[in-house]
Amino acid sequence: MVRIGIIGAGRIGKVHCESIGRYVKNAVVACVADPFMDEGTEQTLRALGAEKVTKDYREILADKSVDAVLICSSTDTHAQISVEAIKAGKHVFCEKPVDHDVKKILTVKEALQGGGVKYQVGFNRRFDHNFEAVKKAIDAGRIGHLDVLKICSRDPAAPSADYIKVSGGIFLDMTIHDFDMVRYLSSDEVESVYAVGGVTVDKAIGEAGDIDTAVVTMKLKGGALAVIDNCRRAAYGYDQRAEAFGSLGQIAVANDASSTAVISDANGVTAEKPLYFFLERYMQAYVKEVSEFVRCIEEDRPVPVGIEDGLQAVVIGLAAKRSLQTGAPVRLDDIVR
Amino acid sequence: MVRIGIIGAGRIGKVHCESIGRYVKNAVVACVADPFMDEGTEQTLRALGAEKVTKDYREILADKSVDAVLICSSTDTHAQISVEAIKAGKHVFCEKPVDHDVKKILTVKEALQGGGVKYQVGFNRRFDHNFEAVKKAIDAGRIGHLDVLKICSRDPAAPSADYIKVSGGIFLDMTIHDFDMVRYLSSDEVESVYAVGGVTVDKAIGEAGDIDTAVVTMKLKGGALAVIDNCRRAAYGYDQRAEAFGSLGQIAVANDASSTAVISDANGVTAEKPLYFFLERYMQAYVKEVSEFVRCIEEDRPVPVGIEDGLQAVVIGLAAKRSLQTGAPVRLDDIVR
Amino acid sequence: MVRIGIIGAGRIGKVHCESIGRYVKNAVVACVADPFMDEGTEQTLRALGAEKVTKDYREILADKSVDAVLICSSTDTHAQISVEAIKAGKHVFCEKPVDHDVKKILTVKEALQGGGVKYQVGFNRRFDHNFEAVKKAIDAGRIGHLDVLKICSRDPAAPSADYIKVSGGIFLDMTIHDFDMVRYLSSDEVESVYAVGGVTVDKAIGEAGDIDTAVVTMKLKGGALAVIDNCRRAAYGYDQRAEAFGSLGQIAVANDASSTAVISDANGVTAEKPLYFFLERYMQAYVKEVSEFVRCIEEDRPVPVGIEDGLQAVVIGLAAKRSLQTGAPVRLDDIVR
Amino acid sequence: MVRIGIIGAGRIGKVHCESIGRYVKNAVVACVADPFMDEGTEQTLRALGAEKVTKDYREILADKSVDAVLICSSTDTHAQISVEAIKAGKHVFCEKPVDHDVKKILTVKEALQGGGVKYQVGFNRRFDHNFEAVKKAIDAGRIGHLDVLKICSRDPAAPSADYIKVSGGIFLDMTIHDFDMVRYLSSDEVESVYAVGGVTVDKAIGEAGDIDTAVVTMKLKGGALAVIDNCRRAAYGYDQRAEAFGSLGQIAVANDASSTAVISDANGVTAEKPLYFFLERYMQAYVKEVSEFVRCIEEDRPVPVGIEDGLQAVVIGLAAKRSLQTGAPVRLDDIVR
Repeated sequence: MVRIGIIGAGRIGKVHCESIGRYVKNAVVACVADPFMDEGTEQTLRALGAEKVTKDYREILADKSVDAVLICSSTDTHAQISVEAIKAGKHVFCEKPVDHDVKKILTVKEALQGGGVKYQVGFNRRFDHNFEAVKKAIDAGRIGHLDVLKICSRDPAAPSADYIKVSGGIFLDMTIHDFDMVRYLSSDEVESVYAVGGVTVDKAIGEAGDIDTAVVTMKLKGGALAVIDNCRRAAYGYDQRAEAFGSLGQIAVANDASSTAVISDANGVTAEKPLYFFLERYMQAYVKEVSEFVRCIEEDRPVPVGIEDGLQAVVIGLAAKRSLQTGAPVRLDDIVR
Repeated sequence: MVRIGIIGAGRIGKVHCESIGRYVKNAVVACVADPFMDEGTEQTLRALGAEKVTKDYREILADKSVDAVLICSSTDTHAQISVEAIKAGKHVFCEKPVDHDVKKILTVKEALQGGGVKYQVGFNRRFDHNFEAVKKAIDAGRIGHLDVLKICSRDPAAPSADYIKVSGGIFLDMTIHDFDMVRYLSSDEVESVYAVGGVTVDKAIGEAGDIDTAVVTMKLKGGALAVIDNCRRAAYGYDQRAEAFGSLGQIAVANDASSTAVISDANGVTAEKPLYFFLERYMQAYVKEVSEFVRCIEEDRPVPVGIEDGLQAVVIGLAAKRSLQTGAPVRLDDIVR
Repeated sequence: MVRIGIIGAGRIGKVHCESIGRYVKNAVVACVADPFMDEGTEQTLRALGAEKVTKDYREILADKSVDAVLICSSTDTHAQISVEAIKAGKHVFCEKPVDHDVKKILTVKEALQGGGVKYQVGFNRRFDHNFEAVKKAIDAGRIGHLDVLKICSRDPAAPSADYIKVSGGIFLDMTIHDFDMVRYLSSDEVESVYAVGGVTVDKAIGEAGDIDTAVVTMKLKGGALAVIDNCRRAAYGYDQRAEAFGSLGQIAVANDASSTAVISDANGVTAEKPLYFFLERYMQAYVKEVSEFVRCIEEDRPVPVGIEDGLQAVVIGLAAKRSLQTGAPVRLDDIVR
Repeated sequence: MVRIGIIGAGRIGKVHCESIGRYVKNAVVACVADPFMDEGTEQTLRALGAEKVTKDYREILADKSVDAVLICSSTDTHAQISVEAIKAGKHVFCEKPVDHDVKKILTVKEALQGGGVKYQVGFNRRFDHNFEAVKKAIDAGRIGHLDVLKICSRDPAAPSADYIKVSGGIFLDMTIHDFDMVRYLSSDEVESVYAVGGVTVDKAIGEAGDIDTAVVTMKLKGGALAVIDNCRRAAYGYDQRAEAFGSLGQIAVANDASSTAVISDANGVTAEKPLYFFLERYMQAYVKEVSEFVRCIEEDRPVPVGIEDGLQAVVIGLAAKRSLQTGAPVRLDDIVR
């Protein structure tokens, strides 16, 4: 039984607490820490299976009975808590992004040098049944050598401008999942990035210094091309698709819906909209990523998504950001240098 | 060049006139006959490529230059004109049904004994690209031995009660196409029929002594089962589908639409409705059936849909009619006896 | 917290044990009884969350701490255990069918007269997301008044002839789910039944006195028609579909697959096969039906699938059986009389 | 009746000859000119409905009975023949591209200043039922304001390296259709272009100085983004899709297939491949574009695709070419200046 401490009791912290309590085998939530812990939150967390709660995450790090921590706090604290947890000998599962700053991610990488602890980054979409099917088909050679990878990722509705301000911008907050998906599906690295975009959804996003709609083109080192298109709003719900095209054919995945029902009437032939947002769409992926983390601890295997994956996605995001600013393509070498 | 006379200048007569004029190779409309021929109709027909028009179909039968006739007159005249045309040495393409009365169909069959002329029945759906794909897959063994055949056939809107009165009833007017489809797709014969149905669309249809919604179950001689469901009205347009299920799998065909466009919006994910009705849906099939008829004449080959096909579909229709009346399944042997 | 005893530790008993242990809120497996209980089974059950095991189900009935029982034993014991459990004051969830014999089902109904306990029958498909979507659309008037209901239900592979012998025949074993679905979706009762069928999958099934392929047509009291087609084998997996057609349109549900992946290559455009069999397809429905049962106990509400539903589905099955034997349609009145 | 001369009797010249002969109302092929005209070609053309043939296109230009010409000769002759035809007072339908050189296109534009003749460019895809459906939905406001436009266009198999050498490169030969589609669907103009690409299909294409796989990103003047991905080879046939995304939703069009047949078997659930190549896919579009051209002549209306459209698509293509060479985005202003 792996005893897990969860640091951060916001939305995603609660999601993990519930999924560990209900669905993850051989794991238990030993404690949840949040500086704003109150009675209501405590009740909720206990009902979801948490044994204990605290306001101070260092209590978790000091608890010898705790094997691993899930870092679900705000992004600016990820790197520091990661380093502390590693030093305390805890296995770490850290929500994405590890940080907006490459240097701080490198401090985590450094802390991991000694070995001994697992460090997994929360790119949950790698554990989604649809994207896994694409990965499996590509790896099995079903489409031959990969030539073009296309990812479409649109949120149902834009977050508040307040959120946007601390989000790190669309590329580090939203597209980062798609950058990771490009690396995951292609088993390749990005060489250069060109980003275009604008504000079409909400002027307040523009005033906060960000964009809400983007198309990002990438050249991969192996010669394939990748293109991502994002929007912070889709009238029909959460749009999460991918197409991989190669010498022998194409594999595409569409959205999930809550049923296969199709109504034919005077208005047309209408299927259901995609599942509304990430909690509906990726709940099983959240369960699976933590289950996999737990299994890697138990069987002492390498984690499926490591610190290097966490780093690279941020580097691509920073390249996209610079590309948008300069209007020119950016090589990843120019970011890490 | 096969010279064709068209007998009957109603809707379907005009369809054939246009399709021969435009799309059928090696054929020309020598003459169109209709007792109600007027100036307007003549102009229309000439514009569609007809060389001549007349009020008297016997003029066509007497015309040595005419090789073949298309009988598009009212159903009650089909058998008699067929016999006359055969005796005049013309090849005959007769619209469905040949007649509502088995005895009259048998007079046509008898007239054909001498040989020498082709006689094709207008089951146009055999020439539809979707149903041809099903036939081809079954014949190629793609689904193994056929176990269950399901046909769904619904019109967009019910005809007038006046039409219903002379139509011969739903089974001889509408389902007859589906009965032929069962025989065509299964390459088998029907052994017994059980029909249920009612009036759900238009009370006037009930008052005219007919039903407008039906489910017909059939046992085929080879052991397979078939089921047809019909309705005189579908809010979403013309519904024409089939599913064939066998030991190795299933083949299904869906409706055609005017484009592949799918709109995703707040209302759902909406594709286009089926093509509205038979002229849109089966225009190419009309061209193809007559093209095939012309080719069979030119190359002296057997026609793809003969008098026996015309007869059997009517026999099944009469069995369905009796089943509905008696509430019991009916063996085809009991109809032809 | 509702304390549940499970009677019968076969496949479906284990399914319920696991789903209660993991997914059903406010319920716990107090005990599992099975006459063949051994150490291995005990270990499995305890790992799934069972507190206790026993060989004697009467121990469960005698246990004052147990609120409800799930009867998952062999069909021939359902009625008797049901009656005993009711008398012991336990709420009962009974797997389908309640019995093959109407009289024995009526003894259960009688035992329930006193009231006080809930009695739910395990028609799990009512709790499936797809069929629920159909029900919801019909009830919301989306297709107007219901005219034709079509259900297709095919297993991936036939069971052994030994199973067939005790199964009660295809109509009571397999089609019974579809009969219930007809009642559920239509909110109507069946008036008469006509069944055709044969042995196309496995001769041993025929030798065991059963058929493996069937088409069943029904007239409903409200005037709608229903048709079910079944087969004990489908090369492509578990096929579970429904179509409801009415005055305003149609609603159809297709199969679920494990992903939305579609591969386009030289062989065609290929999507995944349906989920293989009922455990994959209906796992969430199993969770949902028991969750609903638990909620009805807690909130003292009527159960969603009661003894009358259990009875009617068997009556329709017996009518289908007689229809197949006599070759004639059978009125349900003639079965219950 | 519009009398048409066809200049060039290659593949596309014959396609137009047949489509005019068979399907275009109120038009007749008066003459076909080709310097390599031989007896076999003459026979073919006459069978398709051509009244006359010649080796010298100037014979057509001199023929007072000819109202319009279709220029289907090699691209390097388009501009000059266009100018001659305009001076001879003929209406012109010119295959795409008008020329690879902006200056030569401008000579055509200049020749048209006087007015009096129609000049249509052969962007046939604007007349395709699927793309028309997208255009119609956008124009009707179905997706709100357009934010992102995505076009996927892949040929089934690469042409020979010999063809590649004279093709003008992938952007002027293949993508040019997609550039026009961007302008057509968006009703907007391209501001800047960024192109990436490589050789993944055939090394000989690289040796001929071209690429065979590309992704082109565009900013439109109105603020929308567009992205095209091309490949000279698709294992599953001709891939021609588009997606338009806006504030109210998305419209997408998929490929056409020869039937709606779907086979479910042990291999999966398999639909037909797309129609193989442009003659199958766009035959009706070829008929429609010329029909429209004829109608514009008859009714003296502006043509739907004019010289400006011909010019802009080439300018975008040249910008893409330069972007690929320089590795930087290119503004269209920098091309036309």
